[in-house]
Amino acid sequence: MKAKQKYGAGIWHFATYVDRYATDGYGPSRGLLEMIDLAGQVDDLSVVDINYPFVDKSLGLDDVEKALQRNNLSVIGITPEIYTRQFSKGAFTNPDPGIRKLANEMVNDAANVVRRFNANYVKLWPGQDGWDYPFQVDHKALWKLSVDGIAELADQNKDLNFVIEYKPREPRAHMSYDSVARTLLAIEKMGLPNVGILLDFGHSLYGGESPADAAQLAIDYGRLFGMDVNDNFRSWDDDLIAGSVHPIELFEFFYTLRKNNWEGVWQLDQFPFREDPVATANSAIGFLKTIERALDKLDFEALQDAQNRQDAVTALNIAREALFSSYK
Amino acid sequence: MKAKQKYGAGIWHFATYVDRYATDGYGPSRGLLEMIDLAGQVDDLSVVDINYPFVDKSLGLDDVEKALQRNNLSVIGITPEIYTRQFSKGAFTNPDPGIRKLANEMVNDAANVVRRFNANYVKLWPGQDGWDYPFQVDHKALWKLSVDGIAELADQNKDLNFVIEYKPREPRAHMSYDSVARTLLAIEKMGLPNVGILLDFGHSLYGGESPADAAQLAIDYGRLFGMDVNDNFRSWDDDLIAGSVHPIELFEFFYTLRKNNWEGVWQLDQFPFREDPVATANSAIGFLKTIERALDKLDFEALQDAQNRQDAVTALNIAREALFSSYK
Amino acid sequence: MKAKQKYGAGIWHFATYVDRYATDGYGPSRGLLEMIDLAGQVDDLSVVDINYPFVDKSLGLDDVEKALQRNNLSVIGITPEIYTRQFSKGAFTNPDPGIRKLANEMVNDAANVVRRFNANYVKLWPGQDGWDYPFQVDHKALWKLSVDGIAELADQNKDLNFVIEYKPREPRAHMSYDSVARTLLAIEKMGLPNVGILLDFGHSLYGGESPADAAQLAIDYGRLFGMDVNDNFRSWDDDLIAGSVHPIELFEFFYTLRKNNWEGVWQLDQFPFREDPVATANSAIGFLKTIERALDKLDFEALQDAQNRQDAVTALNIAREALFSSYK
Amino acid sequence: MKAKQKYGAGIWHFATYVDRYATDGYGPSRGLLEMIDLAGQVDDLSVVDINYPFVDKSLGLDDVEKALQRNNLSVIGITPEIYTRQFSKGAFTNPDPGIRKLANEMVNDAANVVRRFNANYVKLWPGQDGWDYPFQVDHKALWKLSVDGIAELADQNKDLNFVIEYKPREPRAHMSYDSVARTLLAIEKMGLPNVGILLDFGHSLYGGESPADAAQLAIDYGRLFGMDVNDNFRSWDDDLIAGSVHPIELFEFFYTLRKNNWEGVWQLDQFPFREDPVATANSAIGFLKTIERALDKLDFEALQDAQNRQDAVTALNIAREALFSSYK
Repeated sequence: MKAKQKYGAGIWHFATYVDRYATDGYGPSRGLLEMIDLAGQVDDLSVVDINYPFVDKSLGLDDVEKALQRNNLSVIGITPEIYTRQFSKGAFTNPDPGIRKLANEMVNDAANVVRRFNANYVKLWPGQDGWDYPFQVDHKALWKLSVDGIAELADQNKDLNFVIEYKPREPRAHMSYDSVARTLLAIEKMGLPNVGILLDFGHSLYGGESPADAAQLAIDYGRLFGMDVNDNFRSWDDDLIAGSVHPIELFEFFYTLRKNNWEGVWQLDQFPFREDPVATANSAIGFLKTIERALDKLDFEALQDAQNRQDAVTALNIAREALFSSYK
Repeated sequence: MKAKQKYGAGIWHFATYVDRYATDGYGPSRGLLEMIDLAGQVDDLSVVDINYPFVDKSLGLDDVEKALQRNNLSVIGITPEIYTRQFSKGAFTNPDPGIRKLANEMVNDAANVVRRFNANYVKLWPGQDGWDYPFQVDHKALWKLSVDGIAELADQNKDLNFVIEYKPREPRAHMSYDSVARTLLAIEKMGLPNVGILLDFGHSLYGGESPADAAQLAIDYGRLFGMDVNDNFRSWDDDLIAGSVHPIELFEFFYTLRKNNWEGVWQLDQFPFREDPVATANSAIGFLKTIERALDKLDFEALQDAQNRQDAVTALNIAREALFSSYK
Repeated sequence: MKAKQKYGAGIWHFATYVDRYATDGYGPSRGLLEMIDLAGQVDDLSVVDINYPFVDKSLGLDDVEKALQRNNLSVIGITPEIYTRQFSKGAFTNPDPGIRKLANEMVNDAANVVRRFNANYVKLWPGQDGWDYPFQVDHKALWKLSVDGIAELADQNKDLNFVIEYKPREPRAHMSYDSVARTLLAIEKMGLPNVGILLDFGHSLYGGESPADAAQLAIDYGRLFGMDVNDNFRSWDDDLIAGSVHPIELFEFFYTLRKNNWEGVWQLDQFPFREDPVATANSAIGFLKTIERALDKLDFEALQDAQNRQDAVTALNIAREALFSSYK
Repeated sequence: MKAKQKYGAGIWHFATYVDRYATDGYGPSRGLLEMIDLAGQVDDLSVVDINYPFVDKSLGLDDVEKALQRNNLSVIGITPEIYTRQFSKGAFTNPDPGIRKLANEMVNDAANVVRRFNANYVKLWPGQDGWDYPFQVDHKALWKLSVDGIAELADQNKDLNFVIEYKPREPRAHMSYDSVARTLLAIEKMGLPNVGILLDFGHSLYGGESPADAAQLAIDYGRLFGMDVNDNFRSWDDDLIAGSVHPIELFEFFYTLRKNNWEGVWQLDQFPFREDPVATANSAIGFLKTIERALDKLDFEALQDAQNRQDAVTALNIAREALFSSYK
């Protein structure tokens, strides 16, 4: 019997946010413990991914652990904050070798937190590593630093997994790790067993990929180490509620995971700027459960048969039938 | 003889910024006087547009005026901050009538600052007025509030001009005033002489318009009250240096203004997140002066003749010839 | 009691297609009568929109009528082919006045076919009216011709309705009638009662509009004369099966029509390049019937209440509940 | 001393075109010899890439050779037409093994033409290999066929080079070889020395890449075997005149080639639907010569120095200075 599906979320799902216009933030700032307690209110959430350093610098690991325990949450990953002011021109690719060293140290610290919480991986999202303008960077040098910086970390921490979360852009106008294929090229170059991909459904979508195809490719290279979902309008990383815009491609994404017997946590990476975070998470997980039921009901064989002929109409009808009859 | 072209900038060009990732900001925050002194260092800048309330709440109008005078700057417009936390679900379209009233009051206060500085207009950029999700809003009601809120202000301040700066999106996933045509529809509905458009070149570009065409349309309705320039990659409001990506369409934009004898300030709306703001402004204005010279040299008649035949190759050759031979 | 919903399709749904690569076409070409017989095989189709001149030039109106009758089809509109070779630089905006005259004559001929078939409107899709290059056209002159050309036709045929189908681009890199707002500006300028909009869901979507919002705006101006649906990936007019990518926004679109008591035909504008046209139409209409049932079940009041607070999560949950429980 | 730069073009630059609307074509169809004679009228064109089978099936190789000779043209590559009707569901990935065999045979025939004309490569652009709908294909199987089909050809023709021209989409809604990174992944998997990339500037641009970065990556893998240029509006493969929209990124692209001592032909892949093909080619090549001169003048050292600091403003100023002072 299939094990019960586990759900997770980035802890930032329960934060408040700022942007370049609402510089006073979309709500009063929240401490990490408060976020964890909010996460605990979600109907079916088992794991969280936590930013490091913690938003409240003085907070001890024991305090965090206690908060997690009282909410029945465990830690799936730690996300070092390699995209704040000091890293604004890049973490691994910063022109200043001193800053690159700082990035390495911060990730190594995060690795220790991963060990402490017995988490699955260090998550690397080098959002400031890239460029903004034509002619701004030496593309060869930049890409080499992108690859080498992560290889060095994986080599320094052979007991841990590292996952790279690629994204086309933001906050840089172009991010180095911009796509599944580019990230796989880097990982192949590194040649290390402990570096994989965390595939964000929305990043894939707005990067012009089919997320199902991207997942399949990462799986075929043995590198799909994690994933999270959300939604957007295909031109920006809106981090909306999963399934609110693209339910069918979301279903195809999970169909691909199931087909390949990929059994990891289904995570949320949503930014409820103006919404209640608990209600937002519940709405998303409610829909993911619809998808779970639809996968149990889906006629995989008939679908495969239609795909073997590239029969789009039949394939779509089969998928729609399963998805739309599984809501409750 | 044509008067010397005046250049301007939003004072935020000289600020530092935050975004949802670099929550500690891309640099130490700056006070308004400091920004004004930076603006004063730009080689050829005559006017600024200033946000209101001032970033330093305690700052008096006299202090600001003094700083402007010592930098030989005057004020072209005042931009009320109707997009901060309290307005996160909209200013004119906020579901809460109390917040709508606050927006009205803040803009009326800004109007008084316009009078005090003898500026040209109150600039309205209702960036939080819009929606994020399918089904989130009543589109009819939302649009009515969008139109009525600005009409009310224009009616309350008949001695002043109001300019609307449209933009496709950000921070909302969709902004009510999203395009030149939609904004003109609203202005026609208001039927008031003192409401016009401030056309941002980058907003037009990434909204899928041709900025030259948008400018022409606004002029044909007698509503092009202001403009600013910058650049981007056509999918987001990157606010890069003007001409750094799309120099030819920028030239066509200014060609359209010249052709229509539109004589206003050429303003910058750039966000140098990681760059020196003075160098960024100088680079842009340097290129705008190339465009000025190119306009003086351009063979308007031959170009018109090519356009009359839709002869794209000849038109492009004529434009390129003028633009690329005017740099110095 | 609500009348039974009528379904329609552009007759080109049953044609075969060429593009710039498959110049030998995606299948053997079909005559109009063959297309009509295919349309007759769709489970629930009542009306068609027919291109004029007919693809087989020798075909008489009586022959067409007979074919329609034997398939229980009537004609909702006639679409004059003002976008073929002779109009490649525009129909209403062609630089050559002789070609503009030809366009006018062809549309007047089409108007007679509308009368003959007792159809609802002449449909104008001026796909070649626009531009490709910066500097190619005089935007003021081009737009004036766009507006005047249609006003002239509406004035010449006061007994008939004309609908404009706007689209952002293709085959021109930019089309004059590019958005709902721009088209409404033109219609307001014309000031005639017999010109309206045919809103294509996919055009709206890939033009960056929310189709529900676009429909509401057209309705508020009393100008939503027709509509058709399909789907795409938001960057091109893919003309895929309705609901195959964006079922939730499609539902919001029809919700807006129902809310405003808009009672017209629900039409398809799909291009099954590589698919069976009858199966494609049946798949789409099957899903539209799901939407019909969902509208009957939807709690309009609760939804309105959520919208009044901009409560996106509740609104989405209500909509999802109705839509996903209405499939059968 | 640097050898004189050679210029080339796809012979289709001199054809006429059809699309799904102008089904009667944008002009009377042209035979291959006519196209070659037009190519011969371009001021500085040395090589062409020719589609195979020839548009006039009865045309012999000797006739083509004679036409080339009288126009001082040689052949750089042959492009087999693996994207016409029979291949509408794919060439290498067609569900029908018989069609896959036909594709293999057509490419092998094209390989013989490459040998006959002593050309550089067989160019593969598998534009129909991909998908349109969610759920339509088995992504794992499709990608394997994509890779294996080309590997088989390269293995069958070890004396020849094969180049893959990737593109995000069109005519399929998603093309298998969609990006530089994905194509390099495939080539690495093949592990053969005679498969490389033909990088189309416009495909790269509208796929969200920086063409300069894409070129650098292909060079770093030793796989940049060819390239061509054109321009577009970043959302479609418009195949406009090179430099008409993005002159600065075009300059950065060629800067990257020069920096890496890449010495191949500078080719055009433009589609002058409504323009004179000779004038279009001359306009593009004229601008490419401006870029050549700008590269001779560019201060590579100062630029590298600015890039080492990610100093975007200085880098842009240096590049602009060289480019805008080199027109004549």
